Amino acid sequence: MKKNEISILGAGLIGSLLSIYFKKRGLDVTIFEKRADNRQQEYKEEGRSINMALSDRGWRALDKIGLKEKIMPLAIPMYGRKIHDEHGKTSFIPYGKENQAIYSISRGKFNRILIDEAEKAGVNLAFAHRCEDVDLRSNTLTFFHNNGIKNVTSEVIIGADGAYSSLRMAMQKQVRFNYRQEYITHGYKELTIPATVNGEFALDPNALHIWPRGKFMLIALPNPDKSFTCTLFLPFEGTKVCFEKINDKDDVAAIFKTYFDDAYQLMPNLTEEFLANPTSALINIECYPWVQGKSLLIGDASHAMVPFYGQGMNCGFEDVFVLDSLIDKLGTNVWELVFAKFQKQRKPDTDAICQLALENFVEMRDAVSDPKFLIRKKIEAKLHALYPNDWIPLYTMVTFSTMPYAEAYAQGKLQEQIMDKVMANPLITQNWDKLDYEDIIDQLDAAKAV
Amino acid sequence: MKKNEISILGAGLIGSLLSIYFKKRGLDVTIFEKRADNRQQEYKEEGRSINMALSDRGWRALDKIGLKEKIMPLAIPMYGRKIHDEHGKTSFIPYGKENQAIYSISRGKFNRILIDEAEKAGVNLAFAHRCEDVDLRSNTLTFFHNNGIKNVTSEVIIGADGAYSSLRMAMQKQVRFNYRQEYITHGYKELTIPATVNGEFALDPNALHIWPRGKFMLIALPNPDKSFTCTLFLPFEGTKVCFEKINDKDDVAAIFKTYFDDAYQLMPNLTEEFLANPTSALINIECYPWVQGKSLLIGDASHAMVPFYGQGMNCGFEDVFVLDSLIDKLGTNVWELVFAKFQKQRKPDTDAICQLALENFVEMRDAVSDPKFLIRKKIEAKLHALYPNDWIPLYTMVTFSTMPYAEAYAQGKLQEQIMDKVMANPLITQNWDKLDYEDIIDQLDAAKAV
Repeated sequence: MKKNEISILGAGLIGSLLSIYFKKRGLDVTIFEKRADNRQQEYKEEGRSINMALSDRGWRALDKIGLKEKIMPLAIPMYGRKIHDEHGKTSFIPYGKENQAIYSISRGKFNRILIDEAEKAGVNLAFAHRCEDVDLRSNTLTFFHNNGIKNVTSEVIIGADGAYSSLRMAMQKQVRFNYRQEYITHGYKELTIPATVNGEFALDPNALHIWPRGKFMLIALPNPDKSFTCTLFLPFEGTKVCFEKINDKDDVAAIFKTYFDDAYQLMPNLTEEFLANPTSALINIECYPWVQGKSLLIGDASHAMVPFYGQGMNCGFEDVFVLDSLIDKLGTNVWELVFAKFQKQRKPDTDAICQLALENFVEMRDAVSDPKFLIRKKIEAKLHALYPNDWIPLYTMVTFSTMPYAEAYAQGKLQEQIMDKVMANPLITQNWDKLDYEDIIDQLDAAKAV
Repeated sequence: MKKNEISILGAGLIGSLLSIYFKKRGLDVTIFEKRADNRQQEYKEEGRSINMALSDRGWRALDKIGLKEKIMPLAIPMYGRKIHDEHGKTSFIPYGKENQAIYSISRGKFNRILIDEAEKAGVNLAFAHRCEDVDLRSNTLTFFHNNGIKNVTSEVIIGADGAYSSLRMAMQKQVRFNYRQEYITHGYKELTIPATVNGEFALDPNALHIWPRGKFMLIALPNPDKSFTCTLFLPFEGTKVCFEKINDKDDVAAIFKTYFDDAYQLMPNLTEEFLANPTSALINIECYPWVQGKSLLIGDASHAMVPFYGQGMNCGFEDVFVLDSLIDKLGTNVWELVFAKFQKQRKPDTDAICQLALENFVEMRDAVSDPKFLIRKKIEAKLHALYPNDWIPLYTMVTFSTMPYAEAYAQGKLQEQIMDKVMANPLITQNWDKLDYEDIIDQLDAAKAV
């Protein structure tokens, strides 16, 4: 039985990127992927979103190995949220300063490029290897491959195999492994707004479109082919508008006409798509430890999050970047030490972003439709413009900086308390531009000092 | 492939009891147990406690199928807690009224009798069947048996296979299965106080002995052979007194001489036992749903709890009783309905007792050593004596009643708030007997009305 130096489970975005990082250090790396090599085919997978939103943390990880320029042409910048009310009226809320954007990118295309790059770099690719078991004492991987069983031992095992990780499943049977998987009450369904008959985008392509409706919402992200991928988030059951109660074409049309009429006009294939496409669930996973000897969980395998902060992939890429920075310092001869430091440093940050992702769902589907929310964002933008180092809006800290998520979370909570007080002023809508901004910063400094 | 009517995974206490209940209805029942049939041998198993404490909920479940009289002679009543301070001084805190007791019983002996009874009743026993997988669509169980694989399909599958349940592991991979396993910071080690040279109990056999030391504790339960089984609960690491820092005979002796000297004098084999016996971890498990079609989780498989309320087995037995009561009403032709009602009714109760078990650890290791705790218990006992239907101490509701755990929890929290106020009186130690007890009951009624 051959012994691999490094075995990575999963040729998804995180596993592929990590393999390139390792290979650049001259390590012998093999990726085992349960799917067949389908790089020549159209990407299609149930239960995972089609579009991703790349932001600063993701770009930094691509940049360190020289892939940023290669990926940029595939990505469409979105400079803010475009909110659609029930009458089709829209308003725009910028994400950050001018030129700050998150980038819509197709998961499938992006993943194919990363696998190609890994292959070019010399990573061994083992497709159609379904991991059945991991023996953590001997670091032996058992795969189902070519209708038979295949065992591989490995010096180091990295589980980049996502929310249903085989490595984590093996770790879960170990004593003192804490684990939590929780599905939220909402599911989602992907739909399409195609390009217009003139071959143009049907909506402004440089925004993330949101139809916030309180307990539910629709969003849309642009694609290079001038279509939009829409995602409808609804409760599975138990409310007036929920997946359980949408059973035929009439139900679909009625819901869309009532709540999303402007989008409905742009969706000629809506009812067919709705009934054909799966309804998927949304999971949050937290666990600890991530390490067992020389085995490590990374990305969704250790911290799958709901998609509402657009940080799942960015956080996974930052995992890779942080791990690599530790290897820069400590080298490749002390894996246990590197992994131990990695999980200790990284766990508070992934806990923070998992929590923020859960909280941001309420903001997206509900708060953004409140006129006061827009005022609040304007006040925060002005504070940031006046005091760029003292007041950084939470969204900016998460999306347009590489500040540790846990720090962003803590500072965000302080700022939130102060903003709640500011917004309690009954005349805030008229007065927001004439506030004593210096006093607000003083309040923040005082809160930080506690 | 033969199709079983009912397959129960696990021949532990819960699985064996449930099989007898089913058999009494004339159902065809098979229990699959991963261990060999070791009823002829001395019971010995790592990581599970040797003694259990049977209380009312457990007795009720035994009584319904006529086993109470058979089990009673094996059990030793414990009427209260005997607290040992650091100087060896003891005080006694009754659990309830005179004659109310919890009953110390050996897990091994008890389990053997239940398996014997199941066998006598006509339950099929399949030992040495390790469940490798459960296919929830076809209700097929895959076992490792006699060095080979064996498949069994079954109309109904019950997972009574404990904290590491195979059935739950299969359910965990289903979409929308919420799951949480969490280890507490403390572990435990079992030790022995043997009978004296005269063949007598070395301590009062009719009490549960506790040596509370703040962050850690020792307890002792009596056995019919006049020994006591002691359990030491310590943090694994990170504090002055923890398992990680006890590495040799000198360490063991030093800890016991310092903190448990009166017990130490009664433990001639302490250091050998300490170093030979395993240190075990303590897990809390919560999950939902418990049901997938005609498969059901029961007992620890669905709600493993820490042992500090002595309710793990009692709660599992009550699961059986509640399930059987639903079958009384609905019959054996509508398993999905029975199981759906069971989980809906039972989940709030098992959540409540899991939470109470976690909270009671603090009481046992810390609060009981506070002189005010004794006063508090006396006030509550007096309230209960004066107003037996209005004020029932939480411990009594949990242990000496069959009130749903969730109700006990809710009423317990109201009582706790009122008692906190009562105990804030600086003269309470002197005045406790002269309180306005009627006013306290009025406060509780007012709190309940909110």
